[in-house]
Amino acid sequence: MKFKADRATLLRALAHIQSVAEKRNTIPILANVLMSAEDGLLRLTATDMEIAVVEEIAAEVLRPGVTTAPAAVLYDIVRKLPDGSVVELDHSGSEAPLSLRAAKYATSLNVLPVDDFPSMVAGDLPHSFALSAATLRGLIDRTRFAISTEETRYYLNGIYLHVAEGQTGPMLRAVATDGHRLARVETELPSGAEAIPGVIVPRKTINELRKLLDEGAADIEIFVSDTRIQFRAGPVLLTSKLIDGTFPEYERVIPKGNDRILRVGKRDFADAVGRVAAISQERSRPVKLSVAPNLLTLSAVSPDQGMAKEELDETSVAYESEPIEIGFQARYLNDITDQIETEVEFAFADSAAPTLVRDTNSPSALYVLMPMRV
Amino acid sequence: MKFKADRATLLRALAHIQSVAEKRNTIPILANVLMSAEDGLLRLTATDMEIAVVEEIAAEVLRPGVTTAPAAVLYDIVRKLPDGSVVELDHSGSEAPLSLRAAKYATSLNVLPVDDFPSMVAGDLPHSFALSAATLRGLIDRTRFAISTEETRYYLNGIYLHVAEGQTGPMLRAVATDGHRLARVETELPSGAEAIPGVIVPRKTINELRKLLDEGAADIEIFVSDTRIQFRAGPVLLTSKLIDGTFPEYERVIPKGNDRILRVGKRDFADAVGRVAAISQERSRPVKLSVAPNLLTLSAVSPDQGMAKEELDETSVAYESEPIEIGFQARYLNDITDQIETEVEFAFADSAAPTLVRDTNSPSALYVLMPMRV
Repeated sequence: MKFKADRATLLRALAHIQSVAEKRNTIPILANVLMSAEDGLLRLTATDMEIAVVEEIAAEVLRPGVTTAPAAVLYDIVRKLPDGSVVELDHSGSEAPLSLRAAKYATSLNVLPVDDFPSMVAGDLPHSFALSAATLRGLIDRTRFAISTEETRYYLNGIYLHVAEGQTGPMLRAVATDGHRLARVETELPSGAEAIPGVIVPRKTINELRKLLDEGAADIEIFVSDTRIQFRAGPVLLTSKLIDGTFPEYERVIPKGNDRILRVGKRDFADAVGRVAAISQERSRPVKLSVAPNLLTLSAVSPDQGMAKEELDETSVAYESEPIEIGFQARYLNDITDQIETEVEFAFADSAAPTLVRDTNSPSALYVLMPMRV
Repeated sequence: MKFKADRATLLRALAHIQSVAEKRNTIPILANVLMSAEDGLLRLTATDMEIAVVEEIAAEVLRPGVTTAPAAVLYDIVRKLPDGSVVELDHSGSEAPLSLRAAKYATSLNVLPVDDFPSMVAGDLPHSFALSAATLRGLIDRTRFAISTEETRYYLNGIYLHVAEGQTGPMLRAVATDGHRLARVETELPSGAEAIPGVIVPRKTINELRKLLDEGAADIEIFVSDTRIQFRAGPVLLTSKLIDGTFPEYERVIPKGNDRILRVGKRDFADAVGRVAAISQERSRPVKLSVAPNLLTLSAVSPDQGMAKEELDETSVAYESEPIEIGFQARYLNDITDQIETEVEFAFADSAAPTLVRDTNSPSALYVLMPMRV
């Protein structure tokens, strides 16, 4: 195998690749990238056995062939080559080292046998549909903060993607929850997704996918079976196993009758939460909301440090129901307000019951937050 | 005590203060800032018993007095207040909490008795001189990377500041070494420093001082005794204990007869070191320099990964002596080249002997590097 590629193009692909390749050295071949050159194309593959990423870039192929290379080292080297370099890679046979040249720089890398590189079979993926990168970003950003990190509840370690009946007909929904908060976002059901099974997409897959969406690909094609999901974002194909479990019946925890409605400006509210919570260094700082007609008082108490409070009045608060006092973790409040544009809408039942949170401008997202005793 | 201060002014002072205050809670009072308000001035003090920082800012003093407050919490709160706020602090007596108000935000902080706050006595400081912030930055930046982190050799855990005979007369010198490399930088002896004792300034003091110099204060006044050093940078007064030890006779390790001179462009050299060292993930990556007339080959070998090399030719290399092969830690080479502007000058003796490194444009700095076997 022998090819020449533009350093910037190769670097961008290796950035995706090395991010999926295993960093820990338990199975050495998984720290490698598989490179296959043919017909003016270089195809790079990395896998951790749960996710596989394949990317194709243009290359001047001088001799077709296949080789492996340590992904992190190759990425580091290419990153340090001068911008504008042409990188030449040459591998003459199975036992020989891989040679890399760029101007007067040359390296010779030990490689592992191509046959050892595991292939992750996507299998038959009967469902396919497309989402714009912006829509997919919206589904991910507004739910992934709620993904559980508790490994024992493995079926909560991802985003539950499924079809559900919305107010205007069937919708594509993304849901995540860790038992303390829940995020549910929906979008118009794209053509081809009507019959997809409900699937739980693992956190690592979500995070890798999200990075690809930052680069502004236009439409993302999505392919689904009962056990696999695949995303095509421009030249990148990301295949992932799904979490083999049953997502809980989340609709049961979404309260229906919460009728005490508080609307508050997002910036004022988020800043006040930050300032009031600053009194305590604890990670699970509770903040108390004392809500009265057109007046919201946020407060926090720390046995060691003292107390803090801030009032928001009718210039940023609208509330007309009976007064209520209710507490939430400051961090959970901020995770939600980070996703809200200009105005937050709370719907309370009472101090001990789950609270609904919405973005006034964006009815497609809904959050549920469990209160804390304060 | 009661005063009002501008949030931005208070924040800048608290940033300096909280950086010196102890983060660990072994002695609670050391995590506090002492605030004393009188005559239109607020004076803030923090100490870890080794360093004390005192800063004065303008404040509208409504009732003179003294109080303490938890430095990190106070900093965090003031940081989160809106820009342009006026912050009011009010402490009515020893047992009462400290109240802070800004617009509709209010907090009440538990405080520790003022009498518990330790005072660090500077004592008599018989020597005083001034350096420009730029000169002091130069002395620090070009030496502090070589400060030893080995606590057993505590007398190397700082920068040795002293008067020494330079080529053009007595100079003020800063020296640091960790036994593997040494950095020596000198500047014209400022008036008042002629009779200072040689002092070892601890790393933490150097780091705190360096932060103050970033803010572009003009001249820094320096006061010295046998056991203390004090820096005045604008409104900030930093007092530090000195390391009580004897700095080694470093002149003995600076080689005299090294006559094989290599000059190499700094950018090309530093980049090549980075690329060649990328072959190995080890922290102490050795890079071999093979020097021949007007040709420098850098190379590195990793038993696991392979090897890498790069040639620099007469476009960036000048060398006219006998060929030599010599190895250095990549990181040590980069630490030095980071301080060099455009051209690096190496003076070699042989492959096993200490090598001199200089900045061609800046004869005031000199570095010694111990070779590694390669």
